[in-house]
Amino acid sequence: MTMISDTQLIAEKLAQATGILNEFDVDVWLTYVRETSMSPDPLLELIFGGDLTWQSAFLLTKTGKSIAIVGTFDSSNLLEMGVYSDVIGYDEGISVPLLAELKRLDPQTIGINYSEGDVAADGLSHGMYRNLVNMLDGTPYQERLVSAEKLNFALRGRKSPTEIARIEQAVKTTEMIFDEVEAFVKPGMTQKEIADFVQSRIDGRGLGYSWPKPFNPIVTCGPHSAIGHAAPGDVVLEKGHLLHMDLGIIEQDYASDLQRMWYVLDDGETEAPPEVQRAFAVVRGAIVVGGQHLRPGTAGWQVDEVAREFIVDNGYPEYMHAFGHMMGRVAHDGATVLGPRWERYKGICELPIEVGNVFTLELHVVVEGRGIMSLEEDVVVTDDDVVYLSTPQTELRYIG
Amino acid sequence: MTMISDTQLIAEKLAQATGILNEFDVDVWLTYVRETSMSPDPLLELIFGGDLTWQSAFLLTKTGKSIAIVGTFDSSNLLEMGVYSDVIGYDEGISVPLLAELKRLDPQTIGINYSEGDVAADGLSHGMYRNLVNMLDGTPYQERLVSAEKLNFALRGRKSPTEIARIEQAVKTTEMIFDEVEAFVKPGMTQKEIADFVQSRIDGRGLGYSWPKPFNPIVTCGPHSAIGHAAPGDVVLEKGHLLHMDLGIIEQDYASDLQRMWYVLDDGETEAPPEVQRAFAVVRGAIVVGGQHLRPGTAGWQVDEVAREFIVDNGYPEYMHAFGHMMGRVAHDGATVLGPRWERYKGICELPIEVGNVFTLELHVVVEGRGIMSLEEDVVVTDDDVVYLSTPQTELRYIG
Repeated sequence: MTMISDTQLIAEKLAQATGILNEFDVDVWLTYVRETSMSPDPLLELIFGGDLTWQSAFLLTKTGKSIAIVGTFDSSNLLEMGVYSDVIGYDEGISVPLLAELKRLDPQTIGINYSEGDVAADGLSHGMYRNLVNMLDGTPYQERLVSAEKLNFALRGRKSPTEIARIEQAVKTTEMIFDEVEAFVKPGMTQKEIADFVQSRIDGRGLGYSWPKPFNPIVTCGPHSAIGHAAPGDVVLEKGHLLHMDLGIIEQDYASDLQRMWYVLDDGETEAPPEVQRAFAVVRGAIVVGGQHLRPGTAGWQVDEVAREFIVDNGYPEYMHAFGHMMGRVAHDGATVLGPRWERYKGICELPIEVGNVFTLELHVVVEGRGIMSLEEDVVVTDDDVVYLSTPQTELRYIG
Repeated sequence: MTMISDTQLIAEKLAQATGILNEFDVDVWLTYVRETSMSPDPLLELIFGGDLTWQSAFLLTKTGKSIAIVGTFDSSNLLEMGVYSDVIGYDEGISVPLLAELKRLDPQTIGINYSEGDVAADGLSHGMYRNLVNMLDGTPYQERLVSAEKLNFALRGRKSPTEIARIEQAVKTTEMIFDEVEAFVKPGMTQKEIADFVQSRIDGRGLGYSWPKPFNPIVTCGPHSAIGHAAPGDVVLEKGHLLHMDLGIIEQDYASDLQRMWYVLDDGETEAPPEVQRAFAVVRGAIVVGGQHLRPGTAGWQVDEVAREFIVDNGYPEYMHAFGHMMGRVAHDGATVLGPRWERYKGICELPIEVGNVFTLELHVVVEGRGIMSLEEDVVVTDDDVVYLSTPQTELRYIG
């Protein structure tokens, strides 16, 4: 999260925002924030990239203007960035300059960042919403506020070539770390020892974590580890067990999120038992068929459905999560989810897939007495296909 | 931001919350969040301390119950913590278990986290607010939602002895780093060299930053540095100039925020010129009189006013920020601000000071041709006094 660098990428996203405002016919896109290190708006890292202290407003217009109204102490940073067409500093309060700008622009529609379904499009707090509505009292603009949900989906979801290249680099680095893990791990190690090794490789490279460090990587050793968002513990990796790792890093501000599988050979074994091999083949098969259905215009839930049916048709219980999510500056990047039509994914699993979307494809089954079998790949959607950003795991890997 | 540790501190804050619910006669305090690594509620670190993925609800009751409703993948973490009286996991959606709990508790008032004035009490996003209101449609609870602003002010602002001890430790460590700075700095160094040294001392000790790292520390060298939230640049520290540093660290999850002043002796000088000494004395004097007025029951703006008048009466222009803010798990901890009655501080500068509040006291003046003179101390409010957590800077320090 560097502040001054990446201005070119931010300029790219601002230009993209102008196109999106025209596409959805919204006059002004208003991002209204304060003290963003405590209360961040996820959009801010796409259109600014830093933190702000006092109430601040970013107005992007259909005509391509970009206006930042910020406290005087922050205005020099904005000016130095050089990507905003207007930077207005204030001392005592934001209402006078913000109302003046709105009056000058006289927008018929003002998109603001709220969304019931998508956390990444929901950066406006309820208190700030109330503050804004009160500020606009007696003006025509109060009635012109609309959700900027679709603007957020588009700007966040449609990755630029620069963004895709950065994600691909993070994925490649993650795969290098998996190779290092394979060379390091021996039966008898605990989840924690393995996770500490991975974190030392991440920290040593000066990389970040694409979800919070206490749970990154997730390391599952055999059948006795907790499944899910658990911190690595003292469970020991044993022969005849599965080692599963879910790891996501941040490199140059962009994320990876991959899962890989190893089997620890038992004494006398030269390959995994049939039920382990079958589980791998089915999980891998579900990812393949899911990826084949990930095409522009398809709804998120339709992709999940084919993968889910594949698993169930092969005699395994369905996974109780989504088949995939978008990835960007964090692992869970908001917007379209490849998830079932459960309440939890309402709204966001009905969204259409678009060109430039980067998704994870992931699912797991449990192998009795062995552990979980869980894979995750990262792909980008093109006009008529998907391109894998990861080198897919097509065969079970071995330890010992 | 550790996840599993600090459970005792969280148990302390949950017990404190029960008292506060009784004091303000609110039946249930509902914290409603999702994907908190992207969209954090500042309250969550006081009552839970980790991150959550799916929609999650924390209900604290006047009768002392604490109920967490979270996705199944997160529920084992909550159970392991052992501080919540009930942990309910769900798979498909939160509405069924959440509505069932509300029906069982049948609260007459439900506090939710929104506030126009205080960012730290405003963790509920507008989309999540709408989602909650829709979920409660057709129940009596929709009409029973109230702002939990006052509950947040009290729980956040009234620091427990454990919290105060942790802040004091962070302050002491910061003062050690200032001593190291004094031994290291020589005229001719740039802001960036000085800041890099400080960050190496912070990183080397495994400490965190109480505001974002690119701007921490703020290093102001002489009259040609930008004032305010600027990243350290290439301005060189010269003889006859002032060196100012604003530094805040995180140690054991709690913050410090201090400013210190040095004068770089010019050739032949044995002390700072009179106008520099006078500026120091006036800034120091304003902090002393401000601290003398920081008493339980006083409103935030009243404390600012005496410091501000002191500065103006001594012939300097007023500072264009607040005289102080609360400090806790971050430098700017929300709730009461010791600020003027400007629009920007509306609501939060009228709040009363309470016992256990930890405040910064800070202000600056500019010395023509020399740089800024800015001090900041950290204090805790007691029944009838303030106790300094920092060793106040009572004399200008020297380099060279």
